[in-house]
Amino acid sequence: MNHDLLGLTEELCGIPSVSGTEAALADAVEARLRTREGPLLIERIGANVVARTDLGRDARIVLGGHLDTVPANGNEAPRRAGDVLHGLGAADMKGGLAVLLALADDLARGRARFDATIVFYEGEEVADEHNGLRRLFAEAPQLVRGDLAILLEPTGGWVEAGCQGTIHVRATFDGVRAHSARPWMGTNAIHRAGALLERCARFEAATVDVDSLAYREALQAVTIVGGVANNVVPDRCAVVVNRRYAPSRSLDDAVAEVVAFCADAGADHVEVLNASRAAPPNLTNPLIAELIGVYDLPVRPKLGWTDVARFAAHGIAACNFGPGDPELAHTADERVERVGLDACLALLEAFLGVV
Amino acid sequence: MNHDLLGLTEELCGIPSVSGTEAALADAVEARLRTREGPLLIERIGANVVARTDLGRDARIVLGGHLDTVPANGNEAPRRAGDVLHGLGAADMKGGLAVLLALADDLARGRARFDATIVFYEGEEVADEHNGLRRLFAEAPQLVRGDLAILLEPTGGWVEAGCQGTIHVRATFDGVRAHSARPWMGTNAIHRAGALLERCARFEAATVDVDSLAYREALQAVTIVGGVANNVVPDRCAVVVNRRYAPSRSLDDAVAEVVAFCADAGADHVEVLNASRAAPPNLTNPLIAELIGVYDLPVRPKLGWTDVARFAAHGIAACNFGPGDPELAHTADERVERVGLDACLALLEAFLGVV
Repeated sequence: MNHDLLGLTEELCGIPSVSGTEAALADAVEARLRTREGPLLIERIGANVVARTDLGRDARIVLGGHLDTVPANGNEAPRRAGDVLHGLGAADMKGGLAVLLALADDLARGRARFDATIVFYEGEEVADEHNGLRRLFAEAPQLVRGDLAILLEPTGGWVEAGCQGTIHVRATFDGVRAHSARPWMGTNAIHRAGALLERCARFEAATVDVDSLAYREALQAVTIVGGVANNVVPDRCAVVVNRRYAPSRSLDDAVAEVVAFCADAGADHVEVLNASRAAPPNLTNPLIAELIGVYDLPVRPKLGWTDVARFAAHGIAACNFGPGDPELAHTADERVERVGLDACLALLEAFLGVV
Repeated sequence: MNHDLLGLTEELCGIPSVSGTEAALADAVEARLRTREGPLLIERIGANVVARTDLGRDARIVLGGHLDTVPANGNEAPRRAGDVLHGLGAADMKGGLAVLLALADDLARGRARFDATIVFYEGEEVADEHNGLRRLFAEAPQLVRGDLAILLEPTGGWVEAGCQGTIHVRATFDGVRAHSARPWMGTNAIHRAGALLERCARFEAATVDVDSLAYREALQAVTIVGGVANNVVPDRCAVVVNRRYAPSRSLDDAVAEVVAFCADAGADHVEVLNASRAAPPNLTNPLIAELIGVYDLPVRPKLGWTDVARFAAHGIAACNFGPGDPELAHTADERVERVGLDACLALLEAFLGVV
């Protein structure tokens, strides 16, 4: 089947879908899917749309893409320049959604070697409570279960395997207020926080080998706020620390480690704001091994957190593989090229056996 | 003359005058002064009221008190308990205003050994641009000039001599944004600011002897703010540092020193937010020496900044001397006692020769 993936991506970029406003795009996706003849089963829950085959195959592949984008950055109007499409969501990830819609067209012909579930979901770019996959796993797990999940996040045609876990903690330093002309009457909480910042700056993050992939960990102070008024010795300073850890480590161990890191620097309170599991790369999983091996795909570790970890937590091997440069995601110059879209679709068509 | 200073303080506390809303209290003060017969000359500019004698004496004493208070802290209603008055402004400084109004009554009888100027002014507890003395020096300097200025700020019956200078600078650290899972692509501005906090924490402020008074200096980080989002290596962190310096130092030297302190800690930009001169204790000034010596008053250095420095900058020797415990200023349990009010008035009556 011939697909104009760049044109389809442009259409999708023409329907704004900043997180929280995905309904119009979900409507368009659902309407398009419902026009297809054949064995596709369509379900809609919230702004999540799922299209499935039920052909009785031995294995089921889940293919996923989020409908939402980050807020616009002067790039809300899509713009074509030859075979390049610029605009909000072009790379992250309406190019991937276009590939998924083309695959749905293919699947509607009923010729795949796997059963397939294609999930279009809302709320990936914001707090986890808004995540559509989270809702589907809770309310309709049969719609998202399978033997392998492939997320079409932009990876530039690489397989990005597993993902690191992420933890945010808030470390708070207490003090005693006093007039800043008589600081010896008080205790300066901001000064006390300096020890934690120095510790973060000196921290040497490990690079951890898992399945021969090098997961480079990280630990960063991402926000700090302290102070009462310009004439007052401050009695409170709070630092949010973000820890990224390799899939070799358990969530509990990673949380305990970052809490101790802050406490050892003198923090009076350490509150865990959120903590997400890592996902193993699973390169020995037969389906992942086939995807990589047969098509000789380059593989690298995923350092950021993605919904791959959500599938992994539900016992489903998963990886990221999609069109578009991941370094351009969330930037004003986000864009995607026709050649990358076509290559991604061709590979997934071959893997699913729909051609 | 017999004055019920505690009752008068209670009356004044009954007229709210949080900074910016001093007009009603200025009206009451002006009305009371205008009922007095005799040689008092009354002027009103904004919410500032000045009462002067012009008896042709050899020297002129300026006595000053600010009309405004800090915001209420559950203590807006004055409350008498025996010979103690509790409530917002009781110590800072409506007790002092009551003493000034009693002195005005005395001066109206025309028997002082000095000419006197009594200044009731607005906007002392807020940014300098609102300060009534600042306006009077700019618009009507003849109303505030004299040979000695006494500010009736609460000093508990001590002479608080001179005052330290105060400087606020904002030290900003730059960085380069990156995803917090790939911090090696960026530079963390919050981490960089840690060096300044450590430097502030380690700083050993000097105690400087001036006229045998020990001015204990200070340097404190009073606010800090940094961060972009929880997943972003931050590219900016700003620290406000407050420096308090002894009157031995010039303003320019003190500013240069604190700017260099921040720059040496790696700050990329250091902006001077405000910089106020110190005031020398001037203990050898004949009028100050007489005030202290004849009445055997205890003397200590003023560590915070007061309008004493404004008079000093205009070449007028000045000191703080007033009723009320300075440690209670700006606290919920602010209060003043009758004995302190009476003692302050008696001393100033004797010094001015009005009894």
